[in-house]
Amino acid sequence: MSAEVYQIVKADILRELCVKAFLKFGVDYDDACVAADNLVTADLRGISSHGVARLKIYVDGLKTGQMIARPDIKIVRESPVSIVIDAGGGLGQPVSKMAMEKVIEKAGVSGVAFATVNNSNHYGIAGYYAMMAIGHDMIGISLTNTGVIVVPTFGRDSLLGTNPIAVAVPAGEENPFVLDMATSVVPRGKLEVYDRLEKEMPVGWATDEKGLSTTDAARTLKNISGRIGGGILPLGGEGELFSGHKGYGLAMLVEILSGVMAGANFSDQVYPRDEKGNPLPAQLGHFFGALRIDCFRDLAEFKNDMDILIRKMKDSRKAEGRERIYIHGEKEHECSLKYNKEGIPLHQKVINSLKKIAAELELECMLQENDVI
Amino acid sequence: MSAEVYQIVKADILRELCVKAFLKFGVDYDDACVAADNLVTADLRGISSHGVARLKIYVDGLKTGQMIARPDIKIVRESPVSIVIDAGGGLGQPVSKMAMEKVIEKAGVSGVAFATVNNSNHYGIAGYYAMMAIGHDMIGISLTNTGVIVVPTFGRDSLLGTNPIAVAVPAGEENPFVLDMATSVVPRGKLEVYDRLEKEMPVGWATDEKGLSTTDAARTLKNISGRIGGGILPLGGEGELFSGHKGYGLAMLVEILSGVMAGANFSDQVYPRDEKGNPLPAQLGHFFGALRIDCFRDLAEFKNDMDILIRKMKDSRKAEGRERIYIHGEKEHECSLKYNKEGIPLHQKVINSLKKIAAELELECMLQENDVI
Repeated sequence: MSAEVYQIVKADILRELCVKAFLKFGVDYDDACVAADNLVTADLRGISSHGVARLKIYVDGLKTGQMIARPDIKIVRESPVSIVIDAGGGLGQPVSKMAMEKVIEKAGVSGVAFATVNNSNHYGIAGYYAMMAIGHDMIGISLTNTGVIVVPTFGRDSLLGTNPIAVAVPAGEENPFVLDMATSVVPRGKLEVYDRLEKEMPVGWATDEKGLSTTDAARTLKNISGRIGGGILPLGGEGELFSGHKGYGLAMLVEILSGVMAGANFSDQVYPRDEKGNPLPAQLGHFFGALRIDCFRDLAEFKNDMDILIRKMKDSRKAEGRERIYIHGEKEHECSLKYNKEGIPLHQKVINSLKKIAAELELECMLQENDVI
Repeated sequence: MSAEVYQIVKADILRELCVKAFLKFGVDYDDACVAADNLVTADLRGISSHGVARLKIYVDGLKTGQMIARPDIKIVRESPVSIVIDAGGGLGQPVSKMAMEKVIEKAGVSGVAFATVNNSNHYGIAGYYAMMAIGHDMIGISLTNTGVIVVPTFGRDSLLGTNPIAVAVPAGEENPFVLDMATSVVPRGKLEVYDRLEKEMPVGWATDEKGLSTTDAARTLKNISGRIGGGILPLGGEGELFSGHKGYGLAMLVEILSGVMAGANFSDQVYPRDEKGNPLPAQLGHFFGALRIDCFRDLAEFKNDMDILIRKMKDSRKAEGRERIYIHGEKEHECSLKYNKEGIPLHQKVINSLKKIAAELELECMLQENDVI
């Protein structure tokens, strides 16, 4: 089958497959459900780079001990507005959901609250946790540091992650505003697509081992993996002409809040290995926050003004050749409605990787051809 | 005298001149000092676009009643972690300093705190308020909406401001991290420089009245002033290729927190005029925050790790042709050390505008040639 074939799979089937895979490693059932839901939510929202395509990373992580199946999660520090959690080297998703629940609970009483998590692993899509605040009429915040892949402005080495910022804000009749953005100009996935298609990248996405602009995706990916030099540029691109230093600043801010302030590892300290080269827990850190809107403004007025602001953008004149102005989270919301109903189109490579995992773990094979609608 | 001549003036002379100008309109002495210090601090930090060059805007604002000299400032809502302040249409600086002081005081007790301010005017450089938190071992946050000049991705009309984000974080031996960035790709001042030099702008800074890329700074500025269409692009540039939608999302986030959540005007509602076309208070909103670091981590450990993170960046290999990697706020800090000692180089146009103000307001003329060193 060609590499560019897609098959449609129902979300529930994927969720069940992921849960079963996690259970095989002894992950607690509830934790397995959270991690699975985070992955499938990414696919539902059209963020396939963070979806079930990554199940293998988690399976490998659990296999090697990089991710601890039943971690000893500890609350290290706590106040009515703050909590610091040691994730015990477990999966990033369950501890992050727990942290965000605590933040929402505390903000419900105190008005605002924040959590940091250290000793954690990859937590999936950042927006997943920020969005948890919406139903509580709060603004939700979620940040994480990640493996280094981004070069600081004027630098040659990748010393920062794609370090996402997610903020979710409820609206009235309109869909919530859900910003979920890497602070790099593009995610690694974009380079992988250009590599696969053997296409030249636009100037301004990445630099080579000398720290100079490159359009060669394959070389950039190789340089990043081998830590040879260069990497993806921060939002704003190379140098200062298009304000790449701003994207670099945002990446630093995320590194500070989710890395340094969380007491996690940061910059090139993340994803450590033991003396034999085996992966240890990634030592990532996360940062979560919730602000109760009614501390600041009457809730109904706030939601009404959110609708006005959103409609101002959407209803305004379009640039020539453009038909629609989007609000952040809108494309993803529409995508999830469609995919929830019709199923998720998965690349044949992803299907194959899931089948391989199922076979390896001797899971009841749920991806029979008759399940693939 | 040619337009590109600079003269060196001591900060104190500029501060005194600004204070005297504000006092002429009946501004309270303490408030005048705050507003003056904010302007001169911008010049000291090398952000001349927000320095005394803008004194005329404030003088005009006080003259027309857009800025109320002795505003009725009211606390509208308050909790141990939050405060909402109605600025009464006064100068943006004094109320913002007061809001940040309250936030720091509350965070000192509660751990974290936030303030919103509505019914305000231009508050100067955002970083001024964020930096107030540093000495209290807190992380400081400062956001504001501004006059519309930025187009949303795929849009034709300027519906967002340059909406800055400022976050200040203390370090140990290293200088603090001070991010103070407009969420637009460039500030309006950059376009004015290109216009003055009759230079073509790079593609990716601005769009024309059709919403298409333009390199014509004069036309863009005219289009913005006349609300004809087009404007400055958000960080990340045009469309989605370099992630302009992320800059647009950050601008929206600032508009939501400092505009909608503050109960201020937002988007094209700011800078309203009465039926005769006279300017009314700008109705801008601001958002401030402070997080006590020791809620999350031992302070000494935090500062030590901040130093490590900062040095990781600064000491890393440079891109070919580059000699230095900067941390945010570092250039500005070095500049302020130099200018505090040697005086501030002011463009002759700025000197002339200050002299004109002094003459008009019958201020003791402090910019005699012998003061200009």
